[in-house]
Amino acid sequence: MEKGKSDDWLTADEQRAWRTYLDVGTLVLSRLGRDLEPFGLTINDYEILVNLSESPERRMRMSDLARATLQSKSRLSHQISRMERAGLVRRENCESDRRGLFAVLTEDGWETMRKVAPHHVAAVREHFIDLLPEEAQKAIRRALTPVAEHLRAVRGPN
Amino acid sequence: MEKGKSDDWLTADEQRAWRTYLDVGTLVLSRLGRDLEPFGLTINDYEILVNLSESPERRMRMSDLARATLQSKSRLSHQISRMERAGLVRRENCESDRRGLFAVLTEDGWETMRKVAPHHVAAVREHFIDLLPEEAQKAIRRALTPVAEHLRAVRGPN
Repeated sequence: MEKGKSDDWLTADEQRAWRTYLDVGTLVLSRLGRDLEPFGLTINDYEILVNLSESPERRMRMSDLARATLQSKSRLSHQISRMERAGLVRRENCESDRRGLFAVLTEDGWETMRKVAPHHVAAVREHFIDLLPEEAQKAIRRALTPVAEHLRAVRGPN
Repeated sequence: MEKGKSDDWLTADEQRAWRTYLDVGTLVLSRLGRDLEPFGLTINDYEILVNLSESPERRMRMSDLARATLQSKSRLSHQISRMERAGLVRRENCESDRRGLFAVLTEDGWETMRKVAPHHVAAVREHFIDLLPEEAQKAIRRALTPVAEHLRAVRGPN
């Protein structure tokens, strides 16, 4: 096929942009995951702890938590079960709310979050943020925000 | 803690850059994965097919393939076993090479690659590349290349 047409192979520069973007994602997540291992947490566990700890009453409707963490409801449900067994969260039914299965952060979950967060944030700085000048951070935000909006728009259920 | 110190919480802008970066990664991989499902492939399968199909004799040493796909050798070994059962690749021992366990693309693997690649590339365009003006692609390459280098440098074994 000809190069450079929109229904066509990627050009060398496009390929480089795509590969670099993907590789940094794989590398940074595996690195942050390794830094969380000593605390017995995965990246997904941590993201759920963050979401719950920042929510009123440290609880979220399961469907909202799935949306916030970009997970399918079924995958989130398995994840929450694991975290429930670890004592970090519990499920709660809200009688006053028909839509209502909630995930709630436990005291242990909150304590874990408080203990882990500074280490995790330091790792995000060391391995990503502090390597990007403010201009580069702005460029990434500007470039990727419309991509995120597109991807949320075309995202199917689960 | 005070804001903005390098050992400190992320500022709102830093948080936005990090979240946007992470969310686009999660969303684009789940979308590309969904687009590969009809072909019975995962993103990881596809990446391995690409690497092998671009290598001389369509074969790579397992250790090089692990490095190229940023996977641990053990995870790659499981993956290759699955792909072997699917008839896409086979393992080969190279007598002339002591280091030598290789993964080799089969004819079926090559045919699958040829069939799937145009669809996958079109999806990468539709959901990422074509949403980024050339300047934005350049900004992403420039910003993330040193991050990738840092992460490769600090990367432990597997």
